[in-house]
Amino acid sequence: MLLVIWPAFPYPDAMLYLDVNVPATPARSYRITVGSGLLQGVLDQVAQILPRRPFLVTDTNLMRAGLVDRLLGDRTIPMFVIDPPGESSKNLHTLGQILDAMEEAGLGRDSVLVALGGGTVGDIGGFAASVFKRGIPVVQIPTTTLAQADSAIGGKTGVDSGISKNAFGTFWHPAAVFMDVDCLRTLDQRYYRAGLVESVKHAMIADPGLFAYLEDQLDAVLACDPTTMIHVVLCNCRIKAQVVEQDPDERNLRRILNYGHTIGHAVEAASDYQLLHGEAVAIGLVAVGMIEQRLGLDHGDKLQRLIAMLQRLKMPTRIPEGIPHQKVMRLLAYDKKSVDSRPRFVLTSRLGQVYCPAGQWAVEVDLGLVDEIVKELC
Amino acid sequence: MLLVIWPAFPYPDAMLYLDVNVPATPARSYRITVGSGLLQGVLDQVAQILPRRPFLVTDTNLMRAGLVDRLLGDRTIPMFVIDPPGESSKNLHTLGQILDAMEEAGLGRDSVLVALGGGTVGDIGGFAASVFKRGIPVVQIPTTTLAQADSAIGGKTGVDSGISKNAFGTFWHPAAVFMDVDCLRTLDQRYYRAGLVESVKHAMIADPGLFAYLEDQLDAVLACDPTTMIHVVLCNCRIKAQVVEQDPDERNLRRILNYGHTIGHAVEAASDYQLLHGEAVAIGLVAVGMIEQRLGLDHGDKLQRLIAMLQRLKMPTRIPEGIPHQKVMRLLAYDKKSVDSRPRFVLTSRLGQVYCPAGQWAVEVDLGLVDEIVKELC
Repeated sequence: MLLVIWPAFPYPDAMLYLDVNVPATPARSYRITVGSGLLQGVLDQVAQILPRRPFLVTDTNLMRAGLVDRLLGDRTIPMFVIDPPGESSKNLHTLGQILDAMEEAGLGRDSVLVALGGGTVGDIGGFAASVFKRGIPVVQIPTTTLAQADSAIGGKTGVDSGISKNAFGTFWHPAAVFMDVDCLRTLDQRYYRAGLVESVKHAMIADPGLFAYLEDQLDAVLACDPTTMIHVVLCNCRIKAQVVEQDPDERNLRRILNYGHTIGHAVEAASDYQLLHGEAVAIGLVAVGMIEQRLGLDHGDKLQRLIAMLQRLKMPTRIPEGIPHQKVMRLLAYDKKSVDSRPRFVLTSRLGQVYCPAGQWAVEVDLGLVDEIVKELC
Repeated sequence: MLLVIWPAFPYPDAMLYLDVNVPATPARSYRITVGSGLLQGVLDQVAQILPRRPFLVTDTNLMRAGLVDRLLGDRTIPMFVIDPPGESSKNLHTLGQILDAMEEAGLGRDSVLVALGGGTVGDIGGFAASVFKRGIPVVQIPTTTLAQADSAIGGKTGVDSGISKNAFGTFWHPAAVFMDVDCLRTLDQRYYRAGLVESVKHAMIADPGLFAYLEDQLDAVLACDPTTMIHVVLCNCRIKAQVVEQDPDERNLRRILNYGHTIGHAVEAASDYQLLHGEAVAIGLVAVGMIEQRLGLDHGDKLQRLIAMLQRLKMPTRIPEGIPHQKVMRLLAYDKKSVDSRPRFVLTSRLGQVYCPAGQWAVEVDLGLVDEIVKELC
């Protein structure tokens, strides 16, 4: 603390300064446990590492699929079940309902929030944990291909506003993450496949070996073979964790995880969220692949291999009919990476390698070129 | 990042671990500027230190008092005006309205929230800043005796639930704080005096010199003499900042700022918030002073001097009629410092010195004794 007196006190226009130090927060780590058949043992493990009163946030999908019963066994703990499940409930209203339910259950700062479900549950559960009594630990148990590959790691929490996705939220790293690949078997096929697009994205930006593995083992992946999926999930976690560790607050490097998302998010919003996130990102990946070709960044068969993979995943590779190209272009300006409403793109220079000119992971692309490619994809 | 494989993969019950590092957050500092006549220059200073798009959160009291005009000059910036002002608006609903207004104003991560007002504005404004786009800087301009002494420093943000005060919120340290003692002149006398109770509290726990200064200069304080008030405000900031720097997340030492608040909060809630915070804390200070006497911790005239000071401030020193003693006792169990529903108290061993047996700043007091003293005060 520093106290400076200037100008000499006590003149009537005296101004005095006091500098308050905010101490550093020490480094810490959290463990991701990946496996098959581990869900039934998770609450015992949580009780060991975090001996606190648990509160469960989940949704009706998880109830129906029997995963809440599998997690709880014969325990009874206070919980909030999001209904309807999915993005339409991912808003401040649901957040308030969860927080009120926690208050009504008499929880204090000595509690822990357990989020069991997909991305919506994880994002809103993490958000609730971060603001309940100014912050309690959260344990993430992602149950979808999307959440296991992406949203459960990295500490981003949030809800949507009426205008934009994840408009409000916090950075709140989990205390622990448990990923049981058996949970993936309860997923609807469309969701299962769409979630794998994030794995394809991770392979494209960081791991050509994973890309080849997916090409090779896609049948086992689609059949949700436990050993195969444990490998895929772990590869994803490793890639995401390496990026997040280097840039936890998304100042620069972390943007590479947005590969395919710039146009993807705009298409997703332009479809009024009729497209799943992964489906929209599939289109975004194709679009950015086309941009790379035009910019001379694709010297091989990168785009061809991507499109072949997405087709085997039954993902769209073009913008569906009924979505006007102008609407996509207008929504592009809202992208979080935009500077002066001009979108920036993460590009790869080859499979597994992000293009990074002058230390910038997200680069401006001529709007005329973007417009041309969005038109071609319509 | 650490990858451990156990047991040997690929057994069907394989579990694999991946430890993700969350890097340390570096230390930083923020400046509190205290003075007279500085409000009109604040936005220029903010533009210099934080060249970002500003958004103003304030309330109708500040509008009426002309302080919004004084801050803005001939500028127009997007803003949200809390109406009605005060604690009744300090809830998740208002938070959502502020966040939506920020979205509608097209603000992004490159913005800064400026909170002009009392404790409610500062707490809810800081909360909004901490969750808008996962966190933007906040500049606090506290305008009340309470907020300048207490709530604008330390990074606590929050809103009330239907059940408890500050139930939801974050730790979000301001980027800068500006305190213009001229703002205090616009306050209603009851609020002005009640806010000074936090200064009395600070003096009791940490600064016998400030206590003597207040006794000596109380007429100048009550007349809001600028030089006197700059001194009082700075002393308060120094005490609060020293405590907060050592314990930013309220793990232990920071609890001493809760002196007088254990019974104070309960009385405040029991009055259904008809008592102002400072009025309730005045009663809480007297109660804890009586506890100290019974425990043999008051060897002098500490309690007498306290009561004399509070009476000159026209603060209540007894629990008002109509508040049943049982209601106070029941609400005591909800105190955040409670362990197993047994409240803990911060006590002083002498004026300016907190009692800290075995490293504990909040200690358990026999509930029978507490009950007796609450009864005596009714």
